[in-house]
Amino acid sequence: MKKYCFGIDVGGTTIKCGFFDTEGVLLEKWEIPTRSEANGSKILPDIAKAVNDKIAERGLDKSEIEGIGIDIPGPVHEDGQVDFAVNIHWGHVNIVGEVEKMTGIRTEALNDANAAALGECWKGGGAGFHNLIMVTLGTGIGGGIVVGDKVIAGAHGAGGEIGHAHVTDELTEPCNCGNVGCLEQVASATGVVRVAKMILAKDDTPSVLRGKNFSAKDIWDAVKAGDQVADQVAEKFGRYLGMALATYAVVTDPQLIVVGGGMSKAGTIILDYIQKYYRQYAFPACKEVEFALATLGNDAGIYGAAKMVL
Amino acid sequence: MKKYCFGIDVGGTTIKCGFFDTEGVLLEKWEIPTRSEANGSKILPDIAKAVNDKIAERGLDKSEIEGIGIDIPGPVHEDGQVDFAVNIHWGHVNIVGEVEKMTGIRTEALNDANAAALGECWKGGGAGFHNLIMVTLGTGIGGGIVVGDKVIAGAHGAGGEIGHAHVTDELTEPCNCGNVGCLEQVASATGVVRVAKMILAKDDTPSVLRGKNFSAKDIWDAVKAGDQVADQVAEKFGRYLGMALATYAVVTDPQLIVVGGGMSKAGTIILDYIQKYYRQYAFPACKEVEFALATLGNDAGIYGAAKMVL
Repeated sequence: MKKYCFGIDVGGTTIKCGFFDTEGVLLEKWEIPTRSEANGSKILPDIAKAVNDKIAERGLDKSEIEGIGIDIPGPVHEDGQVDFAVNIHWGHVNIVGEVEKMTGIRTEALNDANAAALGECWKGGGAGFHNLIMVTLGTGIGGGIVVGDKVIAGAHGAGGEIGHAHVTDELTEPCNCGNVGCLEQVASATGVVRVAKMILAKDDTPSVLRGKNFSAKDIWDAVKAGDQVADQVAEKFGRYLGMALATYAVVTDPQLIVVGGGMSKAGTIILDYIQKYYRQYAFPACKEVEFALATLGNDAGIYGAAKMVL
Repeated sequence: MKKYCFGIDVGGTTIKCGFFDTEGVLLEKWEIPTRSEANGSKILPDIAKAVNDKIAERGLDKSEIEGIGIDIPGPVHEDGQVDFAVNIHWGHVNIVGEVEKMTGIRTEALNDANAAALGECWKGGGAGFHNLIMVTLGTGIGGGIVVGDKVIAGAHGAGGEIGHAHVTDELTEPCNCGNVGCLEQVASATGVVRVAKMILAKDDTPSVLRGKNFSAKDIWDAVKAGDQVADQVAEKFGRYLGMALATYAVVTDPQLIVVGGGMSKAGTIILDYIQKYYRQYAFPACKEVEFALATLGNDAGIYGAAKMVL
């Protein structure tokens, strides 16, 4: 009888480990460092050791473990193969094959933003829903598409790379992906700072942001305080992201859109600006889609990775 | 042992019926009229009779029939419920429940554009692929999203309604959906005519289209003949559709994009204009997606409906 599973979230500096029961109760979580030296070749052995040690420590039998889900910061093919993952110095890696060999336990792998989407759908802001789009607003914009409780990995591991739609011809500097004018360049935490600077440069409208080295948090604080320039930034943010989400919605027609990532800590005011434009541009049948903030924070990845093997 | 299935494609004037073996060989096809009088209440009984009669005519036992797939021109929920279908005068209809009652055979239902996508993925331009986006360029723009050989119906039956992304602020007249500036308004067969008229009105550039009541076919013929205005129309068409497809591609990350519908009869020149802009705007991992023309023509629906029950 399978009672437990592991959800492992590999980041650039730490690996988060979660030990779950198969109902999705997080029984224990801990972290180990990400050793990215030697082309990241120590990462999977470290994960296998963490799993094997935990099983021994708890006096369990491997037959009680349903599986190990592992997410990493990079594109992952449906069969768990990785071609490259820059942040952890990986070239081609066969996550499933290597970890199964070292643990004797069935393993699945997926992209970290996809894991967050699956985790939020399972036990977070999207609990009870089966079809959703999750958008993660951090330094960049990540995303994950869940249809029928399963995340769409995509043919090239790029399912849910929703930060990279072309949304503006106003930029000249390239996005990290190499294209110019991506959603991520104007609606991520760094994106709203970029847009704010462009708006500030246009005229002399007074603003608390003027003359400061400000962050996305400063912008949303200024929006809440009624700052006129910050409101213009928020409107632009809402239009870019709301219209993009309306476009994504005609693809998979979700029940729910979940907004997470560091910038979502500004709260529901973010949803207000997004929804205003989403509802304007959405296809009629999709207009009433619900919006929710993510609730699992940094644990979304371990939840999603665990769900992957259940 | 289940050996056969039916694929039924309900259109505004005729119902196409296909009798298949479970390998997907079309053994027989025929048509019956769509009787949309009395709120379309005769349509499902007519389908049930067509199926029952065919089984009797061939001397088969119902235990040999795997199922009946039915597609209709309107949104269909995953459970086969329909809220409305304007073209066939339907309000709420429970396709699955009614047809199963009249035939005793398991029934599934889906939207017609989704059926076409599934059919092309199974036996048409997308045969051998498992993840694709199909775009149907007719009077409007329909679409279907296939992931893992299954079509995404969506939470409101609007999965694959890819004609209704907002792509331009240049229009003032509303789309059939009620929004303004949808892809369908500028890149369908009627859309390219609209765009051509806008370009012709701008200046006096000579064109074979000038002073005529032209169709989408006339435009593509003019493109092939080197007409300068028609080429501008084709470039605009390619940019609108290529950019939209690049945006859709970051959602499900398909292996293939299939282009069908009446306007696709203009041939591979259409793909050339779409791909030029698709490859410019697509996320790097998705840039090499293949493009293909649909090959099943008007039979795509019956193939996809049949696949739905297998």
